Amino acid sequence: MTDRSTSVDRGFVGAVDIGATKTLLAVVPADVAESASALADALHRPLRVATDPDPDQHVALVAARLRAALGDRDLLAVGVAAPGPLDPGSGLIIHSPNLGWRSNAFGPALSAALGVPVSLEDDANAGALGEAIAGGGVGADPFVFLTLSTGVGAGVIVGGRIVHGAHQAAGEVGHFTVDPAGPRCACGGRGHVEAYIGGAALAARARQAWPDGRRADGAPAPRDAAGILAAARSGEPVARGLAEDAVGALAVAIAVIAAALDPERIVVGGSLGLGQRWLLRRAVTLARRRVTPAAGRSLTVVPASLGASAPLVGAAIIASRRVGGRTS
Amino acid sequence: MTDRSTSVDRGFVGAVDIGATKTLLAVVPADVAESASALADALHRPLRVATDPDPDQHVALVAARLRAALGDRDLLAVGVAAPGPLDPGSGLIIHSPNLGWRSNAFGPALSAALGVPVSLEDDANAGALGEAIAGGGVGADPFVFLTLSTGVGAGVIVGGRIVHGAHQAAGEVGHFTVDPAGPRCACGGRGHVEAYIGGAALAARARQAWPDGRRADGAPAPRDAAGILAAARSGEPVARGLAEDAVGALAVAIAVIAAALDPERIVVGGSLGLGQRWLLRRAVTLARRRVTPAAGRSLTVVPASLGASAPLVGAAIIASRRVGGRTS
Repeated sequence: MTDRSTSVDRGFVGAVDIGATKTLLAVVPADVAESASALADALHRPLRVATDPDPDQHVALVAARLRAALGDRDLLAVGVAAPGPLDPGSGLIIHSPNLGWRSNAFGPALSAALGVPVSLEDDANAGALGEAIAGGGVGADPFVFLTLSTGVGAGVIVGGRIVHGAHQAAGEVGHFTVDPAGPRCACGGRGHVEAYIGGAALAARARQAWPDGRRADGAPAPRDAAGILAAARSGEPVARGLAEDAVGALAVAIAVIAAALDPERIVVGGSLGLGQRWLLRRAVTLARRRVTPAAGRSLTVVPASLGASAPLVGAAIIASRRVGGRTS
Repeated sequence: MTDRSTSVDRGFVGAVDIGATKTLLAVVPADVAESASALADALHRPLRVATDPDPDQHVALVAARLRAALGDRDLLAVGVAAPGPLDPGSGLIIHSPNLGWRSNAFGPALSAALGVPVSLEDDANAGALGEAIAGGGVGADPFVFLTLSTGVGAGVIVGGRIVHGAHQAAGEVGHFTVDPAGPRCACGGRGHVEAYIGGAALAARARQAWPDGRRADGAPAPRDAAGILAAARSGEPVARGLAEDAVGALAVAIAVIAAALDPERIVVGGSLGLGQRWLLRRAVTLARRRVTPAAGRSLTVVPASLGASAPLVGAAIIASRRVGGRTS
């Protein structure tokens, strides 16, 4: 153990968070997971590149950027957060509707390009670990991190460890069915939570609601989640309907988590979760009524304290733990 | 540790499972948790007494029966499974609508009567531990035990340990809301899973559907869950409606568990879960459509292999572990 921790002190790890449109990268000291404040500092200003729709090109891009950031320092391991479902064991991205990648061996390919071990983790799980160790989930058990952006997912932490589930699908509340006759989801299902509240789904619903790009009053129609929610708050009736559906779906997702796990705290992240606090407040009010009164009263839902960095921080912790011989 | 395990070999523990109408009791060797087959054998034919509606009277009854079963053998501890919500730490039964008890200190009272430590555990959690260690959940992680009888609850096991949740409410899927405008639940909520599929709720729905005790065709109306489900299978239209609601609610409960935890196996127990296998099969078919396709395909739901003894086996394991210095 002594030899190992000495080598850890000398080396660095890479952290990568692949999003549907952009990818965040950072190189941090390998012992970064030892300190919550070191984590937050080290990952405060990550590098940012556009996510290449071709996964092989994206491996090359990520490897090149990490090498450039590293300079002549020693790289020991890389942690990668990516939209699931994926298989952390094999490093395979199995089928990510929001990336458009299918059965891509991103983990092994990046490992081959850099010559170091690469650990792949679902971005919601990585975000959960980041918030649990260095953010809004410190001390909470069970702890759940709910991420709302292009897609909707959750990471579950019990006893300080990620609960992956038997098929890497624990926390997949984005695909819980709100209404079996509801709108089509990116996964092929119908009426899933994500089909009402995911950023991609809200953009699609906007195109459907205002096919000619104009509202009934002639003003330019909203095109994305933020636009729809702003229009709803200003009273536009079609947008209000879409926002009500979104709030209701988010309430169902929170209630599913609360009913199954009774977490001490739910932390919400992702661009939509962080940018729309009123949406969160309304959904929590509705969710309280959907579970047992005791669980409802004590339901605690707060915005992610690491902001958009949560999955990147989790990726750094996973890489750091791997080098240190510990596991998440 | 050696001294302790020697004393364990010499002593016995009590196991108690308090149901809404009947209570099961057994006295077993304190080292019973070491062997799954010893557990199943020891608890095969428990004693059975009616549950007294007065909790103080019931403490006296349970203590007397355990003492009689014990003879001159040495009692070291007792494990008690009871309908939740309850607080395992204090031994308080907080509010059990199906027992009609509220804030009853059953654990401390039984401990005082017998002069040994008493561990209280939610019956769904105890059943989950029983099935996880000695029944249908052996080797499955995560593992969930869903119990359907007077009420509906679930016990969640991750890494071989009970997940209690922050407020003892993990697995309370019986109080997840299927329809906010649905029938009243015993807990005071509306349209909860339990309001459609719990044995008490189904009996109440039968009284409401057939207020004069006769079906439209003049035959005697069903009075309980088993009767409703039998009438539904024979084509009686009102019973079919109630059975459809029950199947739908059970599907939602299974989907909540699958979406949040992706368990390797769900084992279903309780009188209704064990007696109505077709109900379970139909609910699983519906539940598969309510979660992400990957999780749906791999969803595995089987009847409890310990039958109605699962919570009693769990209570014995909890008492045995307490004496052995291990925790659940």
